[in-house]
Amino acid sequence: MSLAKSMPATTNGQTSNLLAVLFAPIATDLSAVSQLLRKELRHDDAFIDELAQHSFRIGGKRLRPALLLLSGQAVGELNDAHRVLAAVVEMIHTATLVHDDVLDEADIRRHKATVNARWDNQTSVLLGDYLFTHAFYLASTLETTFGCRTIGRATNVVCEGELKQTAASGDFELSLDTYFDIISAKTAELCACCCLLGGHYAGSSERLGKALESYGRHLGIAFQIADDLLDLEGDEQITGKSLGTDLSNQKMTLPLIHLRDQLNHQQRLTLRGLIESTDRESRAELLRWLDDSDAMQHARDVAETHVAQAVQQLDGLRPSPAKTTLEQIAQFVIRRDC
Amino acid sequence: MSLAKSMPATTNGQTSNLLAVLFAPIATDLSAVSQLLRKELRHDDAFIDELAQHSFRIGGKRLRPALLLLSGQAVGELNDAHRVLAAVVEMIHTATLVHDDVLDEADIRRHKATVNARWDNQTSVLLGDYLFTHAFYLASTLETTFGCRTIGRATNVVCEGELKQTAASGDFELSLDTYFDIISAKTAELCACCCLLGGHYAGSSERLGKALESYGRHLGIAFQIADDLLDLEGDEQITGKSLGTDLSNQKMTLPLIHLRDQLNHQQRLTLRGLIESTDRESRAELLRWLDDSDAMQHARDVAETHVAQAVQQLDGLRPSPAKTTLEQIAQFVIRRDC
Repeated sequence: MSLAKSMPATTNGQTSNLLAVLFAPIATDLSAVSQLLRKELRHDDAFIDELAQHSFRIGGKRLRPALLLLSGQAVGELNDAHRVLAAVVEMIHTATLVHDDVLDEADIRRHKATVNARWDNQTSVLLGDYLFTHAFYLASTLETTFGCRTIGRATNVVCEGELKQTAASGDFELSLDTYFDIISAKTAELCACCCLLGGHYAGSSERLGKALESYGRHLGIAFQIADDLLDLEGDEQITGKSLGTDLSNQKMTLPLIHLRDQLNHQQRLTLRGLIESTDRESRAELLRWLDDSDAMQHARDVAETHVAQAVQQLDGLRPSPAKTTLEQIAQFVIRRDC
Repeated sequence: MSLAKSMPATTNGQTSNLLAVLFAPIATDLSAVSQLLRKELRHDDAFIDELAQHSFRIGGKRLRPALLLLSGQAVGELNDAHRVLAAVVEMIHTATLVHDDVLDEADIRRHKATVNARWDNQTSVLLGDYLFTHAFYLASTLETTFGCRTIGRATNVVCEGELKQTAASGDFELSLDTYFDIISAKTAELCACCCLLGGHYAGSSERLGKALESYGRHLGIAFQIADDLLDLEGDEQITGKSLGTDLSNQKMTLPLIHLRDQLNHQQRLTLRGLIESTDRESRAELLRWLDDSDAMQHARDVAETHVAQAVQQLDGLRPSPAKTTLEQIAQFVIRRDC
């Protein structure tokens, strides 16, 4: 089932092709960022080199570097600081993925074995730390402390979000407000930070910087809701990562919260029982219940609202290919199937 | 058994008292650093606040902040940058302890339950990340990128050392050179960084900065050898942390390497068998073998040599209470029993 029932979903190969088209305005810079990442992650020690190269391959769709570069291009000229910071945010994102995979006990990521599955948890913890610290070092090679400060604060907020999520694990009564607090911190904060940095290093005004930051935040929230939906109804073959981890970790996500809030006392108990059960049948019954309700559609609608709000933030930018791409990326994040 | 057989060992309470005496020249500044740490680690979220406060309590002897402050005072005047960076290095050290305890599966630290024992590994990984990122953010509040850059690089080297140590786990043939590479990276690098930063922010010349850095490196190496000895022959009641973790993690440390290198083929096989066995009797036999050989004394002698080299680096400093304390701390790190 595709994420947005009303929109055609892309397959994995199509997603890559689509992203290649979307990222065309920044293709040269993205390629420079990849080269920089590859260079920074080379190491004389064979073991560290192998780990770092592996992390480079599992490291995502390059969405965050793209957001940073496009935000810069939408405001003015790209420079070396943009490329360095784009590599930094990708490294930080990869570090959080490596640590997430320890936390979620996930086995696959980007169609590759996760670090914890191929090596062990110990190696994953250290590799994540290695990537974090390398990223901070790289950010500190810029002239001013602005990049370090912005990235340090955002990354700290990401960790806060992850800690709050851990505390909320198994909390069937998780409120909608807390759910949004958590996803705004753990996912949207880094997207917002990328857009702010991109604008700042291209000389954006404070107002425009704030608008770009807000664009990134709404986009990040929409992205996370889409991720939560994929975790429930995605296809591991297409997403290339372990799914169903939210339920196995007893994480309440938007569709479940929305369904819960419409139920009477007896139904809530039944829902809770299904969420807490780990057998295949309970899982299938839960998914049927979600499908038969408006819960999935509601979550898609909320994600759409955030996409619309994201796009609205771009009003102050003059028309440009980069601006168009930022609008398209906002649409993309909820229409991807991986 | 005390670490340095020829020297009286301090008990835990005595260690605290001794440190209080040693740190007297920087007592006011250390107290300001503690207050800053306490303030920075306060959080509105009750769960994060509890975790952060717990980490503050398990966070060591404040040796690294003391090295930074004393190096500054030995060169010139202490200022706000020193106090901020002293809090930063303590936070980073605590982050590595929290992650180490996950890796070592340790249960106690500073007489308190480790985060992984009291909560779980997941929480430990995230708390470590939270402390790392908070530390980097705090470093970035200074005026220049020097602090961020120095700390980013040093912390990255620490992670490299930890990764190399992971790769070396179970390697009975670990060379002496690789052993020193590993401890120089995982332990001595941060001590060296503290001393360099302390000097730099008090206006040290490049030559003096390098000498202080080298002091910190030799001190750190001596410290780690002492830690390895404590892990073999210390008393958990006194150290207040889980011991024997090196052997359970199949880590070759200096005494074992030295013993191994004196054995014939048959004896090496026996030693290897004992190291790989986890039962109490094999452990006891191994410790008796170490005691009957010159292995422990050899390790103490090597540690002493590094202490002497550390002290020698201070020759260029004018006499001062801070300089005297730096000399005493170098002696202290191999004479502590916790």
